[in-house]
Amino acid sequence: MFKIGFIGLGVMGEPMAANLLRKGYSVTVFNRTPGKADKLLELGANAAASPAAVARASELIITMISNDDSIREVYYGDNGLIGAIAPGTIVIDSSTISPALARQLHADISAKSGAFLDAPVTGSKPAAESGSLVFMVGGDLEVIRKVQDVLHTMGRKVIPMGPGGSGSTAKLAHNTIVGINVAALIEGMAIAASGGIDAKSFLELVQAGGAASKMAELKAPKLLDRDFSVQFSLALMLKDLRLASSLSDELKTPTPILEAVKSLYQVGDAMGLGELDLSALAQGYEQWINKRITNHSSVEDSVAAVD
Amino acid sequence: MFKIGFIGLGVMGEPMAANLLRKGYSVTVFNRTPGKADKLLELGANAAASPAAVARASELIITMISNDDSIREVYYGDNGLIGAIAPGTIVIDSSTISPALARQLHADISAKSGAFLDAPVTGSKPAAESGSLVFMVGGDLEVIRKVQDVLHTMGRKVIPMGPGGSGSTAKLAHNTIVGINVAALIEGMAIAASGGIDAKSFLELVQAGGAASKMAELKAPKLLDRDFSVQFSLALMLKDLRLASSLSDELKTPTPILEAVKSLYQVGDAMGLGELDLSALAQGYEQWINKRITNHSSVEDSVAAVD
Amino acid sequence: MFKIGFIGLGVMGEPMAANLLRKGYSVTVFNRTPGKADKLLELGANAAASPAAVARASELIITMISNDDSIREVYYGDNGLIGAIAPGTIVIDSSTISPALARQLHADISAKSGAFLDAPVTGSKPAAESGSLVFMVGGDLEVIRKVQDVLHTMGRKVIPMGPGGSGSTAKLAHNTIVGINVAALIEGMAIAASGGIDAKSFLELVQAGGAASKMAELKAPKLLDRDFSVQFSLALMLKDLRLASSLSDELKTPTPILEAVKSLYQVGDAMGLGELDLSALAQGYEQWINKRITNHSSVEDSVAAVD
Amino acid sequence: MFKIGFIGLGVMGEPMAANLLRKGYSVTVFNRTPGKADKLLELGANAAASPAAVARASELIITMISNDDSIREVYYGDNGLIGAIAPGTIVIDSSTISPALARQLHADISAKSGAFLDAPVTGSKPAAESGSLVFMVGGDLEVIRKVQDVLHTMGRKVIPMGPGGSGSTAKLAHNTIVGINVAALIEGMAIAASGGIDAKSFLELVQAGGAASKMAELKAPKLLDRDFSVQFSLALMLKDLRLASSLSDELKTPTPILEAVKSLYQVGDAMGLGELDLSALAQGYEQWINKRITNHSSVEDSVAAVD
Repeated sequence: MFKIGFIGLGVMGEPMAANLLRKGYSVTVFNRTPGKADKLLELGANAAASPAAVARASELIITMISNDDSIREVYYGDNGLIGAIAPGTIVIDSSTISPALARQLHADISAKSGAFLDAPVTGSKPAAESGSLVFMVGGDLEVIRKVQDVLHTMGRKVIPMGPGGSGSTAKLAHNTIVGINVAALIEGMAIAASGGIDAKSFLELVQAGGAASKMAELKAPKLLDRDFSVQFSLALMLKDLRLASSLSDELKTPTPILEAVKSLYQVGDAMGLGELDLSALAQGYEQWINKRITNHSSVEDSVAAVD
Repeated sequence: MFKIGFIGLGVMGEPMAANLLRKGYSVTVFNRTPGKADKLLELGANAAASPAAVARASELIITMISNDDSIREVYYGDNGLIGAIAPGTIVIDSSTISPALARQLHADISAKSGAFLDAPVTGSKPAAESGSLVFMVGGDLEVIRKVQDVLHTMGRKVIPMGPGGSGSTAKLAHNTIVGINVAALIEGMAIAASGGIDAKSFLELVQAGGAASKMAELKAPKLLDRDFSVQFSLALMLKDLRLASSLSDELKTPTPILEAVKSLYQVGDAMGLGELDLSALAQGYEQWINKRITNHSSVEDSVAAVD
Repeated sequence: MFKIGFIGLGVMGEPMAANLLRKGYSVTVFNRTPGKADKLLELGANAAASPAAVARASELIITMISNDDSIREVYYGDNGLIGAIAPGTIVIDSSTISPALARQLHADISAKSGAFLDAPVTGSKPAAESGSLVFMVGGDLEVIRKVQDVLHTMGRKVIPMGPGGSGSTAKLAHNTIVGINVAALIEGMAIAASGGIDAKSFLELVQAGGAASKMAELKAPKLLDRDFSVQFSLALMLKDLRLASSLSDELKTPTPILEAVKSLYQVGDAMGLGELDLSALAQGYEQWINKRITNHSSVEDSVAAVD
Repeated sequence: MFKIGFIGLGVMGEPMAANLLRKGYSVTVFNRTPGKADKLLELGANAAASPAAVARASELIITMISNDDSIREVYYGDNGLIGAIAPGTIVIDSSTISPALARQLHADISAKSGAFLDAPVTGSKPAAESGSLVFMVGGDLEVIRKVQDVLHTMGRKVIPMGPGGSGSTAKLAHNTIVGINVAALIEGMAIAASGGIDAKSFLELVQAGGAASKMAELKAPKLLDRDFSVQFSLALMLKDLRLASSLSDELKTPTPILEAVKSLYQVGDAMGLGELDLSALAQGYEQWINKRITNHSSVEDSVAAVD
């Protein structure tokens, strides 16, 4: 079993590291903001004082941090990761970063005789906790094979996407679809609400018909209860859409729907909804139509009766 | 059991009427283009020479026709339906029409002491054949109750949406989501393809992750096989999006994503893809990026091996 | 000189009729809302009690009304125009209506042995008052020649566009450009304001450079003074964009920018800005960026000094 | 009079330098691609072998290069500018670069006791030749005052925009409007053409009415003659729109119309129109409507006759 290092103990990283510890792996942890490691220490993790210290104690290092800037700080900053890895070390990043940065990490780590995989995930906190994340991986297939068991401890599926950078590319393409599907659901709900249709009946239709989606399944209960607490914040969705937009520009791929949806989330962010769940985009449409998108009507009881 | 009349024996109407006949209902049929009734006559249907003739032979009439103009012809034209219905007749339309027309039919049929339900469906030919359509119904709950068994012979679910016109409104809102979800899938696939990612791996990711949708499930095999034969034509999707756009204008509901996607399908239609399945929208993006969106790469075999 | 009839004495119609009277034409007037004719009666106009009465007193009739519905009422309603015109009568409509309605009027009036021109205008109240409107005309060139002098009494330019319906088509295509140009100006101003640039300097640049436009010239002073009083209301601009959008749908012409701008004005209308000048769209962006788009900075005085 | 250095002798830079020489300034020139200086040497320019050599010979340096990468090479590369400037040197960049780079240049040159102005222009080759460019300037007003005469030798107007970086910000906001106005013109022309309206008549209307713009004035003759030779290439317009889009993202300013227009130019670029004038965007719409946007009809002669 690999001696594992884990950097980034936030909402996703902490439960991912916990699953590794429960599986019996030796895990050395570091987080830039202190105090996040307590539960993991109880599970047997070792604390390290810096990314470099993690590197010196590990054969396989996993990072789960916020964004490009944080990654650069951890990998290239003072007591950073890259400067301290030994030849043969495998490094996996599961954050959502730009493919360009992923390719740079791949090159710089290979130059140190290490190996790098960009392996972002789909799934949020509950999936991290239950070890059912889905990994999309860029990098050598041989390296992916070596770390299979580790990835399968944190997730239920590992899908190779191509060479280094491909995991990040796939993540942005995937999350483009996520962002658009949520906007589609909410825009459809706005038309239904304006047309006097009960939201519960409409969502029942959506989930039974061609309009069904994973995001509709996840957001329908939140929307009906008007529970906009964060599963995936609107601000983080917007961050991904901006990265996706830059990527499609570089790839010279016209993506008119992504651009329209990005502008929509920018408006939502400007309206102060950034720290709520992305489903709070509904509040933007509610302001426009001056009407709640989710309001049960008296059809509700009849719905149960007829079906 | 109701004596049923069925008008409109096309791709959807024919199997719907067949299911009623197999269930034991007496069904009188009419289609504006002759020759479509043959199979149904073998199943025991009675042929009628006009909508009025159907009306005179029926207690419950179901229409499944193309669009507003066809509906007006059948309902209000020579030997039309409305002029011939007896008091107490129930009329159900399952076409996709404008809510304004649905409300007009509701009013005009009520004025003749009949009852009208606008009950469009989600589901295409296979669902029509297997009796697993989902009906979204506008009109009186009492009337919906009366016809429950008939609807459940053709479908698996009946969802009341509100007063007359609500079924059509729900259909347009629902199909707005369908159209956007397909565009989202294809735009995500275009980014992935431009970024060098194998389509099969990407679609596996989509269906396993937050980007999953009913339309992704239906279109993934067609896209991978480059089988653009019609399940739901691009031209019909565009027709629905135009109706949805007019509706959202009338309801003063801003729908920027619907508008962007409608323009996209208009470009696809202009490119001659109208008579193909709506998934042929992929060919539009392929022209733009000068590259196929669905091409398996050598990662394919490895994918099977690693997972 | 023609005996002229003039129907529709609103913001545009009243000054147009006044110019005809001052030129010496005999003018019989009618307005659905009474009380609008007073000033014209002083100038020598004759009052009529209905469109039909106007028709009986006129050889050439001009209508300047709000929209399709009002037109139908005046032309086809009780004591309407079409039923009362004598053979040889020329009818000119200068409202902004759908091309389909314009073609219908053309056909119905020709059927009465009259002649019809759809001749909408560009220019607002000041141009109507000073007789400097620009007419875009659909209909026979021979008829256009006959009424040249009349049109040149109200305007400075008459441009034939093609057969009946072409004037309305040109109007919608023209106003599509107007609506987009105003949105472009305001969006550019929003970027400048967010970037800390003084609005007055930026508008000076716009008007001196490639970004200059007639709309920038008309709206710059209003925006700098934050004077959103109506020259052309946001609601009327939106009405034109909806007509243009329907027209482009019928013509199967993809118009993605029109659709995006239409959604933007819908949001502005939803925000309650409909009865203000269309430049009030700026207030929409101001809400989003939480900052005024027009605020002079201390660069202002220096600007004068350096140039 | 300043001893001037000029780097970047392309389509714009060459005539700008020529105007300085004709005014009597001593000008030392450098271009990365050799052979561009010949005409200027005849006018009395001195040739330098590198940016650093230009710096050593100059009190005021002007750069007019392609983009961020070229700028970095000239300013920071081997024998680059910044490393060689003496205290008190004024540096003016008139390229179109990102505001972030402009602010960096401002800081790095100030750190060398020099002064920097980001002073991009509006106007293309003819304006460069006739000395009628418009400069939008970011940087200290005192420095702007010092170089007034130099700028007025190349242009007709100098507008201060704010501190360092403001010139570049203004340029991107300004060019956002330019790009949208051209798309608006072409989209309006597409509706007109689909509706059977003669392009010449429509453009006459546009230029006489509320839809008039500088870009309509510049592009009307090119469109009518189907002369798509470059005044400002579609690829360069797209480059500016990408920079503007990144800027508006950083400024958290929703710009839905910019995003829609950027996607449109991306499609044009994908269609191979990048090296043509941006008015070649018309060819994109022509493909969609399968019809020429500019075709004179027989109305043409009649137009002259009636007006």
